[in-house]
Amino acid sequence: MSDECPHCSGKHKERTDAEYKDLMNRLKRIEGQVRGVERMIENKAYCTDILMQVSAITSALNSFNKVLLGNHLKTCVAENIRAGNDEVIDELASTLQKLMK
Amino acid sequence: MSDECPHCSGKHKERTDAEYKDLMNRLKRIEGQVRGVERMIENKAYCTDILMQVSAITSALNSFNKVLLGNHLKTCVAENIRAGNDEVIDELASTLQKLMK
Amino acid sequence: MSDECPHCSGKHKERTDAEYKDLMNRLKRIEGQVRGVERMIENKAYCTDILMQVSAITSALNSFNKVLLGNHLKTCVAENIRAGNDEVIDELASTLQKLMK
Amino acid sequence: MSDECPHCSGKHKERTDAEYKDLMNRLKRIEGQVRGVERMIENKAYCTDILMQVSAITSALNSFNKVLLGNHLKTCVAENIRAGNDEVIDELASTLQKLMK
Repeated sequence: MSDECPHCSGKHKERTDAEYKDLMNRLKRIEGQVRGVERMIENKAYCTDILMQVSAITSALNSFNKVLLGNHLKTCVAENIRAGNDEVIDELASTLQKLMK
Repeated sequence: MSDECPHCSGKHKERTDAEYKDLMNRLKRIEGQVRGVERMIENKAYCTDILMQVSAITSALNSFNKVLLGNHLKTCVAENIRAGNDEVIDELASTLQKLMK
Repeated sequence: MSDECPHCSGKHKERTDAEYKDLMNRLKRIEGQVRGVERMIENKAYCTDILMQVSAITSALNSFNKVLLGNHLKTCVAENIRAGNDEVIDELASTLQKLMK
Repeated sequence: MSDECPHCSGKHKERTDAEYKDLMNRLKRIEGQVRGVERMIENKAYCTDILMQVSAITSALNSFNKVLLGNHLKTCVAENIRAGNDEVIDELASTLQKLMK
């Protein structure tokens, strides 16, 4: 896992402040939900309630990924195709195939 | 969300120690993975790497739910059907339909 | 793939007429939807429309499986547990883990 | 559902012969699998076998969509972005969000 964008000549991707805050808030909320499930296990909650709560966390992660992917398409992918870096398309196709498992 | 098993005469569900530890370890690891994604956002990691990491967390939550559901079937569901509490079947059917969305 | 129920002493599973018709109607409709996508390919339909239509077929198959699983739980699984054939629980757990992939 | 590509000046999308045959073969096979499930219902097959077979069809449809999406990205999406038709990106984002439900 690299922490640099391979398409943007080594420059880190700059997110808008609003985007950054939205993504971080989503993750903080998801972290809290996971800790909530730990407390449910400690408190011997009913299995069905735990299954439903975990399913809600999965949905929240899926929403996070949709937001991130939308931003990625509109910035990084579009810019790279315009700049002639067509390998971004193969990379996107490969990423989406993993996400559509 | 109730934190009591409605089928077990008000008694809390007792998990074996091994089961309890396994479930808690999985959740602690997932919590760490979510914090890892927060750090990726802070460090401006490449979107594709973040998408893949979030997808890995979703898989880990799915595995958690499979383990929990397996335990639930073998203990709570089986015991209740044997005890004549057939409403556990309707509840299970309803839960599974939500999980199979 | 066996075509007999291993739990019901070799007797074939009898569905009610209403259940049988509902399941067959769903499959006939799904078969028609798949042929509809073939025509979309022949007529050079836009990719996005095809992707959405295939996604609709996947949802219809998922609904079919939910109905079938609900019936299975309420008849075969419940009866076998009551009859002491507890291996039906392991089989169900294993089936659900494959469906929750 | 339109059957024309809104981005390619009204011209139908032309697939290569190999791509066309691959997509049609996949759909013919899926159609056969659906008819196979109809026969399983007629022959009173065991529920678990039917659930697994329907799950296999869902996977085949998912693979079909991955192939189609890969082609779409490499041709239509890339060409439109290069031609300055940036609305293709919004459309793609919206399609993927529906597929990632």
